[in-house]
Amino acid sequence: MSNKKEKVREITPMDEDFSQWYTDVILKTELVDYAPVKGFMVIRPYGYAIWENIQKEYDNRFKETGHKNMYFPLLIPESLLQKEKDHVEGFAPEVAWVTHGGDEELGERLCIRPTSETIICNMYSKWLTSWRELPYLYNQWCSVVRWEKSTRPFLRTSEFLWQEGHTLHETYEEAQAETLQMLDIYREVAENILAIPMVVGQKSEREKFAGAYATYTMEALMYDGKALQSGTSHNLGQHFTKAFDITYTDRNGEIAYPYHTSWGVSTRLIGALIMVHGDDNGLVLPPKVAPTQLVIIPVAQHKEGVLDKAYEIKKQLEKQFRVEMDDSESYSPGWKFNQWEMKGVPIRLEIGPRDIENNQVVAARRDNGEKVILSMDHLNEGIEKLLEEIQNSLYNKALKMREEKTYIAKNKQEFTKILETTPGFIKAMWCGDVECENKIKEDTGATLRCIPFEQEDLGTHHCICCGKEAKKMVYFAKAY
Amino acid sequence: MSNKKEKVREITPMDEDFSQWYTDVILKTELVDYAPVKGFMVIRPYGYAIWENIQKEYDNRFKETGHKNMYFPLLIPESLLQKEKDHVEGFAPEVAWVTHGGDEELGERLCIRPTSETIICNMYSKWLTSWRELPYLYNQWCSVVRWEKSTRPFLRTSEFLWQEGHTLHETYEEAQAETLQMLDIYREVAENILAIPMVVGQKSEREKFAGAYATYTMEALMYDGKALQSGTSHNLGQHFTKAFDITYTDRNGEIAYPYHTSWGVSTRLIGALIMVHGDDNGLVLPPKVAPTQLVIIPVAQHKEGVLDKAYEIKKQLEKQFRVEMDDSESYSPGWKFNQWEMKGVPIRLEIGPRDIENNQVVAARRDNGEKVILSMDHLNEGIEKLLEEIQNSLYNKALKMREEKTYIAKNKQEFTKILETTPGFIKAMWCGDVECENKIKEDTGATLRCIPFEQEDLGTHHCICCGKEAKKMVYFAKAY
Ligand SMILES: [Zn+2]
Ligand SMILES: [Zn+2]
Repeated sequence: MSNKKEKVREITPMDEDFSQWYTDVILKTELVDYAPVKGFMVIRPYGYAIWENIQKEYDNRFKETGHKNMYFPLLIPESLLQKEKDHVEGFAPEVAWVTHGGDEELGERLCIRPTSETIICNMYSKWLTSWRELPYLYNQWCSVVRWEKSTRPFLRTSEFLWQEGHTLHETYEEAQAETLQMLDIYREVAENILAIPMVVGQKSEREKFAGAYATYTMEALMYDGKALQSGTSHNLGQHFTKAFDITYTDRNGEIAYPYHTSWGVSTRLIGALIMVHGDDNGLVLPPKVAPTQLVIIPVAQHKEGVLDKAYEIKKQLEKQFRVEMDDSESYSPGWKFNQWEMKGVPIRLEIGPRDIENNQVVAARRDNGEKVILSMDHLNEGIEKLLEEIQNSLYNKALKMREEKTYIAKNKQEFTKILETTPGFIKAMWCGDVECENKIKEDTGATLRCIPFEQEDLGTHHCICCGKEAKKMVYFAKAY
Repeated sequence: MSNKKEKVREITPMDEDFSQWYTDVILKTELVDYAPVKGFMVIRPYGYAIWENIQKEYDNRFKETGHKNMYFPLLIPESLLQKEKDHVEGFAPEVAWVTHGGDEELGERLCIRPTSETIICNMYSKWLTSWRELPYLYNQWCSVVRWEKSTRPFLRTSEFLWQEGHTLHETYEEAQAETLQMLDIYREVAENILAIPMVVGQKSEREKFAGAYATYTMEALMYDGKALQSGTSHNLGQHFTKAFDITYTDRNGEIAYPYHTSWGVSTRLIGALIMVHGDDNGLVLPPKVAPTQLVIIPVAQHKEGVLDKAYEIKKQLEKQFRVEMDDSESYSPGWKFNQWEMKGVPIRLEIGPRDIENNQVVAARRDNGEKVILSMDHLNEGIEKLLEEIQNSLYNKALKMREEKTYIAKNKQEFTKILETTPGFIKAMWCGDVECENKIKEDTGATLRCIPFEQEDLGTHHCICCGKEAKKMVYFAKAY
């Protein structure tokens, strides 16, 4: 018992070593483990349950907006990968190659998909014939492999789970509208379900997807002041549709190339959840995505009536909420409190003999530690309200944290000083030149996270790097 | 239009060439397509929607029985694959090998998972410490790769989608109970949702899973009289837990090896759906698994009020059912009828001016072509009842078909004659000897499908092959 309690205590404090805190949390809460192959991860049941909740939220919204799921093969012939020039340059250095099937050496190497634009375009070119079939609104949930040298579970691994949408449209405007619609769905779920505020905007040319016309992104700020790219949506224009010769007969009877988008979010979002909401006691999960929304812990459970009442309440609550009961006899209530706290369960319900006498339960909030007395008479309503409060409170707390860690730099000295002393988002003006972007990265390690849709007047119109006229306000940060 | 109508007509009649019928149906209904790499398939939206429905049914039942999902890596080091002797012999010849990650040659070859026992056992050995943590009840949904020489979409492809459950238990009895429980869940969904009657039983030693103590199976009979192994559940005993050194402290404080099961169903079930229920006009989908349960086709839709009424009905029905509206103006109602018939949609609702006048709709059943007049007043109830009837009727039809194609053979002559003239399941007595099993396969091409739980007295007690005393009644068939 004390052995396990130690485990909780062993989480390194965030402010002491954030990286070690992250590792401690993901391993001790059993979200994930390291796989035998370096750079790969095993997503354990508690981590996968979070992913299932994220999936469900996105999948529902994809379907509501007319998208259907499908499945394309894991393996892509090398020749297909090479059809779009920028794309192959972007991805070829990091793909895994299959060279043998059974005992036979293959005639052509096959790569494990790092993303599926090439194989999907290859099939779309076979299928599409008429404008009547457009738009193509399809998505796939799968795993992808990108051989990474330096990895961290959920944030950057050689294999990860994601969804990739791939759509075709008659016009550039429709493709652009789709690209922005999907980014907005990404943001809406991130903010309303994961309680993570997002900065949305466009990627610079340097940072855009290999083969894209334009890439849009949502960026979140982690507790340590580093940014995390959390979802991207690409207007691919006709780059791929021309490279893969996808044509159709348009409304005028002419042969035309469709416009193309792709968009993806991944298990990386779980990393964001951890690093935005977590604290020194472990995970803090927003109610809407928590696998367990509340845990019932009977106190003095050997006393007559306690367990019966606890189970009665569980039965009543689980019609509406995701509930666990912890009535194991091997551990003390105190140990259980620590354990479920570490797991980030939003509400702990304590029920003991005195509570039963008083027709009440004690609800302890994970997010702020407050204890609330709830009457048993309207328990479901009480819990519902409390979960809503926790959800909103977590969002507001995360927003406040991001605002406190978002700075304005008017010149390079300010920029460097902020990065060195108080890492976070830095809003600055930029001339649009990739050389300035490169120089800032070389000199400071910060990258241009995005050109936000919401432009602000920072009181200067000079590029943070070269001092020339600048028209874009952009976000810089060090990033995962 | 007539061009597309031809497409429907072009389905090869089942009795003329069943194999070509199958290919025509899966391609023309856009369930699936051939991928650029030989032996791989693309599951198109209509096919994937069926898979999503199958997944949902199984996943719900897995969770109701206490299982949780997780995700293990795609790639398994060669050394892990080799730890269980029978397993490596069974799978090594058909795995795909990754030899390079990016530009680097790997120190050890990695295989793409053909199934995940080895990597999962490797992790379980790290995690399990005490009997208190048992049972381990975990499952994963993923794709697996087995390099196949001769392939057919859904039935046998080099990559397919499936789920694989992997559980650990304190006792042999618990593992056996789990193995049989999961087989029963497989059967129940197959029968009640897919409307496919199953023969359930045990695999012979020859046919069991590589590394299993015992394999149980459900076997379905296709229209052409060939069997399809549709789901298997393995009691793995301690073969893997010993090979991978999975130990824990048991209730007596002793170090012990847990008992182990694994079980899987795959996209193969879609192949079964097609070949059990389909007819010369294409797919016939049971309502409970059909992506579209009913399609509304307005007749004379240019007439005032028809489209409005059709949309009103759609809105009312889609609260309860999966409904599509086909109001495209490019095609005639007749063409649409053919198209949706080919797609196997259980009910076609026709609504025209006269129907509206009479406060009714016409419902055409896909399974038997009957037309039923339904009052608009209780339309939801009418549809619900009709869908139930179709579901039951499909099951009964499939059961009758299977019974008609199930034969008894008392000697080898009878056996051979049945196979040559009226292929199907053959019930026969077997001595239990693998040599007899091998000889029958060599001589006739039929394999021992299973030793059914329901044993019958066939009026003979002599092995169909060697004539020695036989205690087991078994099913033989040619199989996919
Ligand atoms: Zn500049
Ligand atoms: Zn024999």
